[in-house]
Amino acid sequence: MTGGGGPSVGRLAVVGIGPGAAELVTPQATAALAEAEVLYGYGPYLDRVPARPGQVRVPSDNREERARADAALTEAAGGRSVALVSGGDPGVFAMAAAVCEAIEAGPEAFRRVDLLVVPGVTAMLAVAARIGAPLGHDFCAINLSDNLKPWSLVEARLDAAAAAGFVIALYNPVSKARPWQLGAAFERLRGHLAPEVPVVFGRAVSRPDERIEIMRLADADAARADMATLVLIGTTETRVVERPGLPPLVYTPRFTREAAR
Amino acid sequence: MTGGGGPSVGRLAVVGIGPGAAELVTPQATAALAEAEVLYGYGPYLDRVPARPGQVRVPSDNREERARADAALTEAAGGRSVALVSGGDPGVFAMAAAVCEAIEAGPEAFRRVDLLVVPGVTAMLAVAARIGAPLGHDFCAINLSDNLKPWSLVEARLDAAAAAGFVIALYNPVSKARPWQLGAAFERLRGHLAPEVPVVFGRAVSRPDERIEIMRLADADAARADMATLVLIGTTETRVVERPGLPPLVYTPRFTREAAR
Repeated sequence: MTGGGGPSVGRLAVVGIGPGAAELVTPQATAALAEAEVLYGYGPYLDRVPARPGQVRVPSDNREERARADAALTEAAGGRSVALVSGGDPGVFAMAAAVCEAIEAGPEAFRRVDLLVVPGVTAMLAVAARIGAPLGHDFCAINLSDNLKPWSLVEARLDAAAAAGFVIALYNPVSKARPWQLGAAFERLRGHLAPEVPVVFGRAVSRPDERIEIMRLADADAARADMATLVLIGTTETRVVERPGLPPLVYTPRFTREAAR
Repeated sequence: MTGGGGPSVGRLAVVGIGPGAAELVTPQATAALAEAEVLYGYGPYLDRVPARPGQVRVPSDNREERARADAALTEAAGGRSVALVSGGDPGVFAMAAAVCEAIEAGPEAFRRVDLLVVPGVTAMLAVAARIGAPLGHDFCAINLSDNLKPWSLVEARLDAAAAAGFVIALYNPVSKARPWQLGAAFERLRGHLAPEVPVVFGRAVSRPDERIEIMRLADADAARADMATLVLIGTTETRVVERPGLPPLVYTPRFTREAAR
């Protein structure tokens, strides 16, 4: 895998391929993927990238983010043009932070790699677009996984966000190893927010198995979420607009009632 | 402007064209813009859309969001295929919420319009990608404009976000009518966060006049921001990694020190 006539320092593109549909992959991402000699990534993400003759593919397990970043950087530091494929946007609970961690902790050669992060449409934007404009007011994004931070910190952030009136996007709401956290989050939020606050479950948005569900916070059922789901929790200002023959719209007004008075 | 052989109910696509560069416009956005008979939008955004013969363009002022939404919906309800062009992502402090407000408040015909929101790369993702992974941990997005909400609410959200350890993305940090708010926000955040917390000013990212600056919170100078700037404020965990011959990286680790112990 060491280079023939290539430059001594290679390139690493960390590429966001969006939520799934090809029509949501940016031209910059398409170009970066086409130019790479070696592609790293979680298997199902690599499967979305069109095959090219001569391009080497190194699929890996979903949870080996840091090891994958180290491997991709090592390859790039050796002079190759490497792409690391990320779902959604690589900077939002995806591969870009793991790559930066690896650069900081790794050998000097990692700092010389020509790094390009290619942004993408992250899941909360794709879900929001599908349903109206739930993120139309101030909002926050919380990774519900407590693998890398204590659950007490997740709770403190849920409390702070709900009390301050942020719409909340929950990434990684559930996994086999984390079955109870989303239910606990709903229960906690019911202590801050009215029962009728809208909750949106956006699963596999833009993919063939897309499923969108709207519930009231009082009825929000954590069992409806899986690993491919992004959960949005509105505020007391968030509206549901019924439409004849069309799905309802969910949106959060730009203004607050206080300011509109 | 009323339709010939078109359907009696038209279509409105609210299209996010990303931060500026053509390589960050999704194929879905490109297609939606090409299919429209009439384009509405803030003048400088419309100027980024390639011209097509026969397509009508209705540019408007930046601050007339609701009037623009009403006009576009009226045109679509009359049977035309209309696109409303939005910078970045239409769901993030852009046109999608104004359109939903107009649908809820408007005539029944607005609810019958075939509405498509096309997501895009919003400014905070583009700025983050340019500099590393500052949004690698939980984060929030706050519209710093107090045109539609009271300043006291902005202050409360800054307090809550900083105290809870969210990275903060500030949209619309400054305008001619709002010259002091960003400085006041920095001053307030200095009461919560250490002086060395990194602040990123990302101006016109991906456009020819792009400018990125990194400062410590203690030195953050609001005068460096203009209407085209997105400001990111890190947490006490956010890192700056120097690189020989390359710009520094700014990233927020996925883990917290507490969890890593």
